[in-house]
Amino acid sequence: MLVNAYGAQSAERPLEAITIERRAPGPRDVAIDITYCGVCHSDLHTVRSQWGGTLFPCVPGHEIVGTVSAVGDEVSRFKVGDIVGVGCMVDSCGHCGSCHDDLEQYCESGFVGTYNGPTPDAPGHTMGGYSSAIVVNEGFVLSISHPAEQLAAVAPLLCAGITTYSPLRHWNAGPGKKVGVVGIGGLGHMAIKIAHAMGAQVIAFTSTPAKRKDAIDLGADSAVVSREPAEMAAHTGSFDLIIDTVAASHDLDTYVGLLKRDGALVMLGVPEHPHPSPNVGGLIFGRKTIAGSLIGGIAETQEMLDFCAKHGIVSDVEMIDIKQIEEAYERMERSDVRYRFVIDSATLQAA
Amino acid sequence: MLVNAYGAQSAERPLEAITIERRAPGPRDVAIDITYCGVCHSDLHTVRSQWGGTLFPCVPGHEIVGTVSAVGDEVSRFKVGDIVGVGCMVDSCGHCGSCHDDLEQYCESGFVGTYNGPTPDAPGHTMGGYSSAIVVNEGFVLSISHPAEQLAAVAPLLCAGITTYSPLRHWNAGPGKKVGVVGIGGLGHMAIKIAHAMGAQVIAFTSTPAKRKDAIDLGADSAVVSREPAEMAAHTGSFDLIIDTVAASHDLDTYVGLLKRDGALVMLGVPEHPHPSPNVGGLIFGRKTIAGSLIGGIAETQEMLDFCAKHGIVSDVEMIDIKQIEEAYERMERSDVRYRFVIDSATLQAA
Repeated sequence: MLVNAYGAQSAERPLEAITIERRAPGPRDVAIDITYCGVCHSDLHTVRSQWGGTLFPCVPGHEIVGTVSAVGDEVSRFKVGDIVGVGCMVDSCGHCGSCHDDLEQYCESGFVGTYNGPTPDAPGHTMGGYSSAIVVNEGFVLSISHPAEQLAAVAPLLCAGITTYSPLRHWNAGPGKKVGVVGIGGLGHMAIKIAHAMGAQVIAFTSTPAKRKDAIDLGADSAVVSREPAEMAAHTGSFDLIIDTVAASHDLDTYVGLLKRDGALVMLGVPEHPHPSPNVGGLIFGRKTIAGSLIGGIAETQEMLDFCAKHGIVSDVEMIDIKQIEEAYERMERSDVRYRFVIDSATLQAA
Repeated sequence: MLVNAYGAQSAERPLEAITIERRAPGPRDVAIDITYCGVCHSDLHTVRSQWGGTLFPCVPGHEIVGTVSAVGDEVSRFKVGDIVGVGCMVDSCGHCGSCHDDLEQYCESGFVGTYNGPTPDAPGHTMGGYSSAIVVNEGFVLSISHPAEQLAAVAPLLCAGITTYSPLRHWNAGPGKKVGVVGIGGLGHMAIKIAHAMGAQVIAFTSTPAKRKDAIDLGADSAVVSREPAEMAAHTGSFDLIIDTVAASHDLDTYVGLLKRDGALVMLGVPEHPHPSPNVGGLIFGRKTIAGSLIGGIAETQEMLDFCAKHGIVSDVEMIDIKQIEEAYERMERSDVRYRFVIDSATLQAA
């Protein structure tokens, strides 16, 4: 079937209205009419081929919410009319150790991304949620139980939500734990909300004094301006876990110094230019770790969605018309969004 | 009491015979006649003030084995004639979280080093095992159950042994686990022996092809020459744990790439010049960690000594006369030792 989409024909061209083909649903497929799609920084990096390797035409979008329009014969978990989500992955090998452990994001053959991933479907690479409809194997479709009026704000949970939920769970954020969140943006604002709901003490770090109040409003117990050495020093050796959402190159030693013994600094973003090399002595004197974490598995994504529904957690979003996407990218590049743009997919019909 | 020692009067002067004072044993003290003392790279760094902050006269040595010569009234765990050891620490605050958790090496006030640490005893800083006798609080004295003929080779367990045992235990080396050891020197040769005795599959990494056979003889299942890309690539994504004993600046990304998902690269040495900044993407795609680890607590050091006695593990040592210490330092600096020098403390009597 042919569906409306918005995509780029090359790294140099803006996104424009295009028509793409979706496969007919196979026996285990779920066809979804997309209602909302969040706008992730990865979308921008990919359409502009800033990481290299982008296949064109490129239709980004991996924070997808929609309604099931058809299901294959063997699909048992979904039926027409269900509200569902699709995140960063639409397939994986299914038989490696990571897939076996419900950690498809670490699939040893590489997971299939919701866009720019390999697929037998034409044109040979996946195309994402800046489109009216998508067809996905039921194993990569998530159930959404949030109320209808929150669905636009649920979309970013599919990437920003799970990317922060997974390390918070893995490193045991919860009551009695002190958790830092570095950067109050698309990822950071979700990390604050989720860590707070998990029962942890949450301290937000921002380089922007004006965001201090925002952090508190989001659920942080307090906010620290990272450029103020005295404010930082007051937290020396006190954190169990610090989630670092800042991809720009920055000094890690400062945050390692804020960890207590056995604490972990978990990096979620890959910097364009390397961070200054962290001081190994800072790790040794305290058995501290610097780690990384990538989105989350499908089972954990479902767990996150259910957790967020139970705790009334959604993303703070600004709705846009698909025709505003280039303007949204520009604003995103200067961090002028609180905290996630979400495309109203109805605007694709008129595009 | 006055005892013979070997120490440096300044960073520029060689070690020489000196006489130092030891306190009279207090109620909880154990006085020890030293029989052997291992020579650690830290000794050299400290006497030459390469890390700064060395207090003179400096008497190094923190791999001490000896015989109890006297005990204070309140000492219950040791008696005259017992064979005992003293490692890198002789005191800590005793009441912080780390001390409470038997992790005195991470004492929040800083542990008191066996040399160059603060003490009320004259001259105000501790002096170590390059001496005929030492007086230590019983809480920092270890029992040694190895047979008498192995005692010289036991001395290096007090630093090199526990420094490798502790991370192997903390990161769960054992049956079914694949453990890498980077560098086959004082620390690395102990890591190989201990990890092998724990039941792990052990792969040694060396930049020196000639050490390949040595690694196997020490207990490694195989040895990889780290400068051979094809040999390295054969182990991609396969390690649960890699213990990196190399303090010289080197590329960490190669070893991160050899870890499997959730694997840890544990650094034991602080490089003089920083390692190239590790690639954060390498951590994110696999939820991997780079961590540090520092010696081990007193309870764990006792556990290590008992483990080594049970498994017949000692260090490979070369005995020296105290008068050969400067020559030993020179050879140590060019890695010309297999694998640890140990001072025959009887030679101090004649010094």
